[in-house]
Amino acid sequence: MWMGRVVGRLWAARQAASLAGRKMLLVRPETASGAQTARLIVAIDGLDAGPGDRVIVAHGSRVRDLTVGPDVADKDVVIGIVDGHELGPS
Amino acid sequence: MWMGRVVGRLWAARQAASLAGRKMLLVRPETASGAQTARLIVAIDGLDAGPGDRVIVAHGSRVRDLTVGPDVADKDVVIGIVDGHELGPS
Amino acid sequence: MWMGRVVGRLWAARQAASLAGRKMLLVRPETASGAQTARLIVAIDGLDAGPGDRVIVAHGSRVRDLTVGPDVADKDVVIGIVDGHELGPS
Amino acid sequence: MWMGRVVGRLWAARQAASLAGRKMLLVRPETASGAQTARLIVAIDGLDAGPGDRVIVAHGSRVRDLTVGPDVADKDVVIGIVDGHELGPS
Amino acid sequence: MWMGRVVGRLWAARQAASLAGRKMLLVRPETASGAQTARLIVAIDGLDAGPGDRVIVAHGSRVRDLTVGPDVADKDVVIGIVDGHELGPS
Repeated sequence: MWMGRVVGRLWAARQAASLAGRKMLLVRPETASGAQTARLIVAIDGLDAGPGDRVIVAHGSRVRDLTVGPDVADKDVVIGIVDGHELGPS
Repeated sequence: MWMGRVVGRLWAARQAASLAGRKMLLVRPETASGAQTARLIVAIDGLDAGPGDRVIVAHGSRVRDLTVGPDVADKDVVIGIVDGHELGPS
Repeated sequence: MWMGRVVGRLWAARQAASLAGRKMLLVRPETASGAQTARLIVAIDGLDAGPGDRVIVAHGSRVRDLTVGPDVADKDVVIGIVDGHELGPS
Repeated sequence: MWMGRVVGRLWAARQAASLAGRKMLLVRPETASGAQTARLIVAIDGLDAGPGDRVIVAHGSRVRDLTVGPDVADKDVVIGIVDGHELGPS
Repeated sequence: MWMGRVVGRLWAARQAASLAGRKMLLVRPETASGAQTARLIVAIDGLDAGPGDRVIVAHGSRVRDLTVGPDVADKDVVIGIVDGHELGPS
């Protein structure tokens, strides 16, 4: 799992049937210094997150099955909205 | 899942039997700034995407099963053609 | 598997039901020189590790099943707390 | 899947029994500019590829099952020998 | 799979029960130029490899099942000790 910031959304004109009605978020991973990487991940949102939210994103078949359901053609899922975090001295 | 731009196609002389008749696209992931990474992914196309299209690519066994079918020897699949996206301030 | 240093914790306000009661640690991978990468991984802790501990993190469905259980929506798990390690000349 | 160039072979003195008789190739991924990355992947060859060939490498359990068989202790497999490819303007 | 150099070992005070008695090696991937990356992987050793050995490391559930067994909470496994390799001109 990783922690990232929701930076946007996207819409698909043509898409796999199993994505119908799913909200797709653009999320940027956060590094230890609090910076955001250039990398952009598209994750399915099952928790009603929105731009600006800091979220936890997990990847995997079981994750998907336990959250958004087995018939979704994706396995990057927003599984938490971060309330707070604490970083010690590195 | 990630968002990228279709930049080309490729053809294989000899290939696994289960790739016969499948269209393979060369796709470059897009970063948060809209740039394209140097990395080049070969994805199976099930949506009739073409060069210049911005697409969503997913990776996984279930993804493949739900879209191009279980007997395809690959699990990077174009599962959406992006219609629009919205990036907030990072 | 990789070796890293626990640098913090995080809490989620809204989260997948299957994460309830799970401790989530922020872990930074360590490189061969002993430095920590900028990358930050969120791992489920099943061994009561804490900030400052050097841990071994594994990723996978079976790993999770064998440690924290099959119904956890994540597959990055702290599976060891490092007691010592020995690096030869590279 | 990704596209790369076969740059060599390797042999193992002691190895997992299920690798016996398998040809292992060293392959370097190719980037969008045609350069090769420093990264070196070891892939099982089921198509009789050789040094200099541009190949398609896939990764996954099903890929392996559909090509070199389920009892091979690896899941990076050469599944195509590239005949031609076309890169549009990026 | 990838090729790397064994650079050390590590021991865990507290660890998942399924790691008991398993030897864990620190391995650094090798690049095309023969250099070692900064990245450090912890792999289970089933072939009695040691510091200085050049090894092949595979990742995956089936790999683990076929080599060290299904009940090991890890899926990075040393599956070969390299005897020789040949790199052509790139």
